Amino acid sequence: MMDRPLLISQLLWRGEHVFGEKEIVTRLPGAYHRYTYAEFGVRARRLAQALARLGVGPGDRVGTLAWNTHQHYESYFGVPCMGAVLHTINLRLFTEQIAYVINHAGDSVLLVEPDQLPALEKIAKDLHTVRAYVVLGDGPVPETSLAPVFGYEELLAAEDGDLAWPEFDENTAAAMCYTSATTGDPKGVVYSHRSVVLHSLNLALHGSIGVREEATFLPISPMFHANSWGIPHAAAMQGTTLVLPGPHPVADDYLDAIEREGVTHAVAAVSVGVLMRDALERRNRDLSRLEVLWLGGQAPPLGLIHWFRDRYGVEVPQGWGMTEASPLATFTAVKKRIRDAGQEAVDRTLVKQGLPMPGIEVRLADESGAPLPWDGESVGEFLLRGPTVTAAYHDDPRTAASFVDGWFRTGDVGVIDPDGYLQLTDRAKDLIKSGGEWISSVELENALMSHPAVVEAAVVAVTDERWLERPLACVVVREPVTTTGLRAHLAGRFASWQLPDEFLIVPEIPKTGVGKSDKKVLRARFAEPASRQALRAPDGS
Amino acid sequence: MMDRPLLISQLLWRGEHVFGEKEIVTRLPGAYHRYTYAEFGVRARRLAQALARLGVGPGDRVGTLAWNTHQHYESYFGVPCMGAVLHTINLRLFTEQIAYVINHAGDSVLLVEPDQLPALEKIAKDLHTVRAYVVLGDGPVPETSLAPVFGYEELLAAEDGDLAWPEFDENTAAAMCYTSATTGDPKGVVYSHRSVVLHSLNLALHGSIGVREEATFLPISPMFHANSWGIPHAAAMQGTTLVLPGPHPVADDYLDAIEREGVTHAVAAVSVGVLMRDALERRNRDLSRLEVLWLGGQAPPLGLIHWFRDRYGVEVPQGWGMTEASPLATFTAVKKRIRDAGQEAVDRTLVKQGLPMPGIEVRLADESGAPLPWDGESVGEFLLRGPTVTAAYHDDPRTAASFVDGWFRTGDVGVIDPDGYLQLTDRAKDLIKSGGEWISSVELENALMSHPAVVEAAVVAVTDERWLERPLACVVVREPVTTTGLRAHLAGRFASWQLPDEFLIVPEIPKTGVGKSDKKVLRARFAEPASRQALRAPDGS
Repeated sequence: MMDRPLLISQLLWRGEHVFGEKEIVTRLPGAYHRYTYAEFGVRARRLAQALARLGVGPGDRVGTLAWNTHQHYESYFGVPCMGAVLHTINLRLFTEQIAYVINHAGDSVLLVEPDQLPALEKIAKDLHTVRAYVVLGDGPVPETSLAPVFGYEELLAAEDGDLAWPEFDENTAAAMCYTSATTGDPKGVVYSHRSVVLHSLNLALHGSIGVREEATFLPISPMFHANSWGIPHAAAMQGTTLVLPGPHPVADDYLDAIEREGVTHAVAAVSVGVLMRDALERRNRDLSRLEVLWLGGQAPPLGLIHWFRDRYGVEVPQGWGMTEASPLATFTAVKKRIRDAGQEAVDRTLVKQGLPMPGIEVRLADESGAPLPWDGESVGEFLLRGPTVTAAYHDDPRTAASFVDGWFRTGDVGVIDPDGYLQLTDRAKDLIKSGGEWISSVELENALMSHPAVVEAAVVAVTDERWLERPLACVVVREPVTTTGLRAHLAGRFASWQLPDEFLIVPEIPKTGVGKSDKKVLRARFAEPASRQALRAPDGS
Repeated sequence: MMDRPLLISQLLWRGEHVFGEKEIVTRLPGAYHRYTYAEFGVRARRLAQALARLGVGPGDRVGTLAWNTHQHYESYFGVPCMGAVLHTINLRLFTEQIAYVINHAGDSVLLVEPDQLPALEKIAKDLHTVRAYVVLGDGPVPETSLAPVFGYEELLAAEDGDLAWPEFDENTAAAMCYTSATTGDPKGVVYSHRSVVLHSLNLALHGSIGVREEATFLPISPMFHANSWGIPHAAAMQGTTLVLPGPHPVADDYLDAIEREGVTHAVAAVSVGVLMRDALERRNRDLSRLEVLWLGGQAPPLGLIHWFRDRYGVEVPQGWGMTEASPLATFTAVKKRIRDAGQEAVDRTLVKQGLPMPGIEVRLADESGAPLPWDGESVGEFLLRGPTVTAAYHDDPRTAASFVDGWFRTGDVGVIDPDGYLQLTDRAKDLIKSGGEWISSVELENALMSHPAVVEAAVVAVTDERWLERPLACVVVREPVTTTGLRAHLAGRFASWQLPDEFLIVPEIPKTGVGKSDKKVLRARFAEPASRQALRAPDGS
């Protein structure tokens, strides 16, 4: 067979040539922007030419601090297709973490939304590798202390798009994304052209979310989160009409876009699904063309699944994945036999995390890494292997702890039933998922224990109506503390949304047999808000 | 990303572990055989153990002369997963060609249906590499002069299936298939594990035939024809219920299987679609569960497409491909815009050969190989490139003529419209497709011209109700000839179905500007049976 590499430029080739007339639509303030895949392809090449003119060469990293827009989408292809590496930076990171990931990735050029300039100006002096800032949007470049600074549209206007994409090894780095760690700085995952192409094929399969020509997809999942779950790449390959929600979107913006553009498939974090439900409760909408709302990032409650199905006839599948797996590892395709068995059987399946995608090998492992049976009862950690799973964290000594015998340790714990459905029951890693973003409980505990009045601290996840999970801090103290005082102590080191809402003063932290904090006990004891009432630290002044 | 190879054993892993309860059903004389993918996986490993015991090692070729059965399906996985190469031999080849392909491939073991033994016995003395014959079926091994000979089921019964598939480079040869050549012996195409896995993903995509868990597929396309178009491999990956039509199937057998097993998707050559229509005209059937009849190998007439749609609500898409492309290169997915425009627009699309699959690059080329525009008017040859397209014919000096600048020359000629749909208008190669099988016009011409009475000969395709195309021979003679005499002259060198039904005696063969036979003129002149009547060679005695 021909030795043809799997390259992202081939996904773009199909979008441009086979589906050149299909549209990419972006909600922008005041208006919707729209153009075709044919126009998109020319602009992606112009971007590559402009970046080359700024000195970007093969292997160089180009960072983005950007919303889900057509310009960000252009960088998804323009950067890797020229042989450079797209580093999508999470806008919600704490400012110091943004500086860390830019330096760690060694970004040479940053593509930045105008609204992100103030944050970037604060850390610019600490950025050691950035040679140029390019401001997105189509207005004039705002007044800024960043230098040298360029306007995105001006740069593109100076190029002709007459460029043949180079060919190179399919294992060449294409993109990178950082994920929160249990302790310390974020950890980087580097995607290859090969992994992106294989992941795109998986997303377009029957038995997956099924990116396809006849659908209109709204990727609400941020493009700075694990390739926006792969939707943008798969959409170009399949000629799928894309609707991008633009800057600072809120639930009503998503619903506007769904109504207006006839979105058939929306893809979002579970917490966003909750916000959309709330917005729909406040104001009914015409969702008649919406068929599927894929909720991921964590397990959607069955009540939410039912709500969308019963009110709007919208199917709510889920997927399980992670930045390290491109991200999709499993998807809740309901087998025909189960569907034929009726609604109850379907419901029992929909709350599970799904079947392994092609190419993804799953091992349910005991503590030594040895395989456990798929009997729906044996509880173990899920290990993953496959060409779309990372082999290492980028230049990071913490890699060793996350791999065993060539398998990636996901840190998620659960069972696999005889039908092959994974179900998560716990999380081995001390992370809390709030509003689709990770919070490290260990980092919060370390910071709390540096407070002079705190003897010991444990932070666990508690259920939250809006954010699905929120951190709850339990502290043992040697002298009186207040909520205000503890929050102030943490405030300088964490983004505000990462701070616990509640601080409980407890006489002791329960321990496991080996002397670790027994978080299972804490989670169970304080699951209900009423159980926490009496122990709350006073507000303070 | 992990350096994990794309291996056929992973397709099997998914079938066995994620869809272990799904069924594989085979029509056998007198009864249907059925078992699950879990059982299938064990038997594929037993087959590998048995072949290893017969001395088959990595890289060795194992030939099959077999129908579409569960045993043939076991070889589709057992042979390549152990690192050996599956050579599926076309039962319809002329006996001498069968000997040629076995010797050329260097098959070490042959898996043979009982009904193929007589043909094989005739050529056994000419087979230089075969070390063992294994007789398929579950009866006792018939009396045969072949040696050493083993019974398939006896061999499997002696093994325990306790085998871990080896891992190796994804470019390792997995399978091979020979295709008819314009002149001379068949040409071999070698598939790799990588190409088979990528092709399987393509078959399971939205916008393709869509192999999926909830469907029941009947691959009528023989398993000795280009991987049965990839259905068997994709089915294991997707956990698709498979119904295999077994030995010597006729149209009513397919229809029995469709009715009885609730087949949702059938896959066949256009000529078989015609036979199924005729059978349905004779006897109505319940086809209510049949959704799609994929007809390929050549273009299905619009009348046939309409017939299945109007009578049974069955959709009839087509694909274009060839042994050299695994085989699928394009598929007639109808774009949403076209579907929305109504039946007439859909019909105009359904007669085209479709859109390029992901990973398949198509070039419409002029005679120098330079690209022509996709305007629906410029006529050129279709060139293909991609990881599922062969780079060469196996050990064959004719390779050079079929490739230009790294592109495969398909020999098919036509246009590409601005929507990306290919449409074939002619065939550059002198081949005729009759009942789904190729016939070389050049070979027939050479043989005819060796007849003492024949001065010149040209063979062209004419339309046939049943076989879609049949060869028509036009001869210029120096003395009287008869149809019987000419057929007898050819009979020893061709299979009977390859012989022309009609021989026309013409005063001269029209020529092109460069002095070649102008077959376009002949095809046009003799398209209608009435135009041939007066020129027919007398029957003879």
